[in-house]
Amino acid sequence: MSKRVASGIVPVIRIDRNAAVPLHRQIYDAVRMAISEGRLRPGQHIPSSRLLAKELEVSRLPVLNAYAQLLAEGYLTAQIGSGTAVSGQLPDRFTSTAPVQKNGGASAREGSRKVAQRTATLPSYRMMPWTRNWGAFGVGQVAADSFPLQTWSNIVARRSKNMSVRSFGYGDQMGYLPLRQSIAAYLRTARSVSCDADQILIASGSQQALEISAQVLVDPGDPVWIEEPGYRFSREVFALAGSRLVAVPVDDQGLNVSAGIKMCRRARVAIVTPSHQFPLGVTMSASRRLQLLQWAQQNGSWIIEDDYDSEYRYESSPISSLQGLDNNERVIYIGTFSKVLFPSLRIGYIVVPRDLLGHFVATRRATDLGSPTLTQEVLAEFIGEGHFERHIRRMRLLYKERRSMLVESLRTSLDAACEVIGAEAGLHLTLTLPGLESDYDIALRAASQNLWVWPLSTAYSGGAARNGLILGFGSTQTADIPAAVRKLRGILLNAGSSGA
Amino acid sequence: MSKRVASGIVPVIRIDRNAAVPLHRQIYDAVRMAISEGRLRPGQHIPSSRLLAKELEVSRLPVLNAYAQLLAEGYLTAQIGSGTAVSGQLPDRFTSTAPVQKNGGASAREGSRKVAQRTATLPSYRMMPWTRNWGAFGVGQVAADSFPLQTWSNIVARRSKNMSVRSFGYGDQMGYLPLRQSIAAYLRTARSVSCDADQILIASGSQQALEISAQVLVDPGDPVWIEEPGYRFSREVFALAGSRLVAVPVDDQGLNVSAGIKMCRRARVAIVTPSHQFPLGVTMSASRRLQLLQWAQQNGSWIIEDDYDSEYRYESSPISSLQGLDNNERVIYIGTFSKVLFPSLRIGYIVVPRDLLGHFVATRRATDLGSPTLTQEVLAEFIGEGHFERHIRRMRLLYKERRSMLVESLRTSLDAACEVIGAEAGLHLTLTLPGLESDYDIALRAASQNLWVWPLSTAYSGGAARNGLILGFGSTQTADIPAAVRKLRGILLNAGSSGA
Repeated sequence: MSKRVASGIVPVIRIDRNAAVPLHRQIYDAVRMAISEGRLRPGQHIPSSRLLAKELEVSRLPVLNAYAQLLAEGYLTAQIGSGTAVSGQLPDRFTSTAPVQKNGGASAREGSRKVAQRTATLPSYRMMPWTRNWGAFGVGQVAADSFPLQTWSNIVARRSKNMSVRSFGYGDQMGYLPLRQSIAAYLRTARSVSCDADQILIASGSQQALEISAQVLVDPGDPVWIEEPGYRFSREVFALAGSRLVAVPVDDQGLNVSAGIKMCRRARVAIVTPSHQFPLGVTMSASRRLQLLQWAQQNGSWIIEDDYDSEYRYESSPISSLQGLDNNERVIYIGTFSKVLFPSLRIGYIVVPRDLLGHFVATRRATDLGSPTLTQEVLAEFIGEGHFERHIRRMRLLYKERRSMLVESLRTSLDAACEVIGAEAGLHLTLTLPGLESDYDIALRAASQNLWVWPLSTAYSGGAARNGLILGFGSTQTADIPAAVRKLRGILLNAGSSGA
Repeated sequence: MSKRVASGIVPVIRIDRNAAVPLHRQIYDAVRMAISEGRLRPGQHIPSSRLLAKELEVSRLPVLNAYAQLLAEGYLTAQIGSGTAVSGQLPDRFTSTAPVQKNGGASAREGSRKVAQRTATLPSYRMMPWTRNWGAFGVGQVAADSFPLQTWSNIVARRSKNMSVRSFGYGDQMGYLPLRQSIAAYLRTARSVSCDADQILIASGSQQALEISAQVLVDPGDPVWIEEPGYRFSREVFALAGSRLVAVPVDDQGLNVSAGIKMCRRARVAIVTPSHQFPLGVTMSASRRLQLLQWAQQNGSWIIEDDYDSEYRYESSPISSLQGLDNNERVIYIGTFSKVLFPSLRIGYIVVPRDLLGHFVATRRATDLGSPTLTQEVLAEFIGEGHFERHIRRMRLLYKERRSMLVESLRTSLDAACEVIGAEAGLHLTLTLPGLESDYDIALRAASQNLWVWPLSTAYSGGAARNGLILGFGSTQTADIPAAVRKLRGILLNAGSSGA
């Protein structure tokens, strides 16, 4: 059936040397059973007679006899040059029973099938087709074709070939030390984060960094400030940890701290994106930063700074981190390589306040023991040799060009009532659609035309949501942007009608 | 200081073209500040004047002037052939203030620093030195020197060089489909698991597989059966999820289901290691398996089958999975490549009952979005080309030899009261020490002599624990085993005295 199935996997065969049934018959029955139960599939190779005899610790003769009979009866076919496989044309009765539970037959299931309440509230992926996409405007996509793949894969090949015995075993749960040293140096210098390598915990992307932080910081029922609108997946992970989410409005200075204090002063944690608020793109003002730090200190609360894409700023000097302003060690700083390198690398990090290190390490251990060693070694070398910095500089120019083209195209094609916001940094911007009915329906329609825009309203946790679209420009070629915007314009002009 | 810090990272420098202070002075002040605050460290390279000028969008002259002054004052040093770096001998006043908060100065911290209660109960890593080790008897270590590294790294190099645009982006949250197909074929045939590729969820090792399962299946306060004694890290992850752990005794038939029913019939989940119980090594009997499945069905509960090392059996035919016996889809089957390939690969998997797939995918998304793509592609090819099967067969012979040597050495060197149990499968066995006081102290003493044995008592969640040692033989060369056993004998003979 599939060419990908591994060849020569030995099926579970029990033989009993003392049984009355002869060995060849036991083997015949076992293989036939494995086929009928779908454990061996049509087209799948079976072990050679020599190998199976060795595995079962019997002589080769009974195996040869059993195989001969299975071949004769059409269960197996001999393929010249490639051994013996399960036949592609099996006797009829097998097709009806194999594979067992192929369709999950609900009728076979009895009794309660209760799962955790929190899990059951997570939205299905099917409701958000735009979160997994490859076409124009994909959010969270990078310019893969401009990645220095040759340099990267040379390091990968070298590191893989020279894996040491230590590289095989479970690594440091905090992460590979040279990588943590490189990250600490980068953060101190480029992001004004005050940290040393021993505070850096490597995680599987910023999502796992958020998850570990949630587990360490909140008990079920604890109130947590989230930005409204905000990043949906950070809401989800705190909801999964049982937090009570308090949606604090974002205005043109960032999170409205006074509003948060009025809504719930005693929140345990505030999650913010101060450098480039997701999705509105606001930079949190200095006074709001100080107010937030003061609230956290007075209230004994924690601040999670999710600095997911601050490497790319186009109009002004880089913004210093909130963590660097904090002299009470209340900020947990989270970063990721998903935007600066590529998402499938799955490496992010947490800068952990020193007195929480023990809790974070223990939680990381219980979570998944650590990240793959090879990827960490490769990344450390890539940074250490200066490729990382060069890549950021090249990409900043490229993304600036794509961004300018997108902003320009939107301004000339679209209604003046639509406003472009948050384009000063990062790999996406937000387009408000004040007149239209449902950005969700527009996004669904756009997806059907291979435009992958996120509806702004889904960034709100409830209540009065602004209508708009979040448009990524990381993976869309500059030259392709005008045509994609025209397509989007067509969809927007039709909005409200049932067309398309 | 460290050669590993990336060169050429641009520090956060703010310049103001309208300010009265000249540009070269602004740049001088900013670099000096970055050094004094520890954001630029001694020995760290700074960007070239050309690069910095470009970044700041100023002419090169003010940058050159600023650098000249910093060089003259000894803040920077010019290194022939390798650019300009922060000086290794800085003026005195800097050494006292930099880096900021280097020692985490508790005096600067004010207010409550409360973390989640559940996290606070996780044991510190320092209490378990033997869980991170490289010497003889390490548990969870494999024969890294027998791994087909050349074959593996060829695949890694090829895959890395040919990364497609899709390989850069966020992958399928369930995992890379061809890998899931290979795993499904393997499990159906070799482990009698009834599954298709669409039920396979790739996770970061069995630990994350357990974590995701915990999040999906239990609400805080829900009772969960764990094996007593059992695998400490699965206890931890369910404790972190807020479960009420019910420690059900294991006897010579595996988990005592009747005892579990008496202790807490209404448990939501039972976590078992039926093929090779950790750490006692018992294979769960057929009648217990049926009893467990019946209880789960009647009670609407779930069973987690952690099949962590069943690939290696030495005395008998492979054991069929519990999942394959279940016709009510109540078993969540978990496996890992940590033992059959190597731990730092960080790939495990879950076979998910079909009606729970939506919950598992949503939880995986909230947890960390997915595993790195490259590793999955490499593993799929490694399995597809038959290397995986060959490796298992070779390793089974090697580990059988190491195991036999260890069993033989223990039997000839040690007191007859010490019993070797659980040696029929896997990469570790357990040695009981009925006479001695504290296996924990023995393990600490052994660790100080580079023998990394796990105390059996720590596998118990409380109450009356058996004394013993869990000994790994995966990474210990056959020829080295007798000497290691003699060393262990010396430690045991001294046990009770304060020696060593």
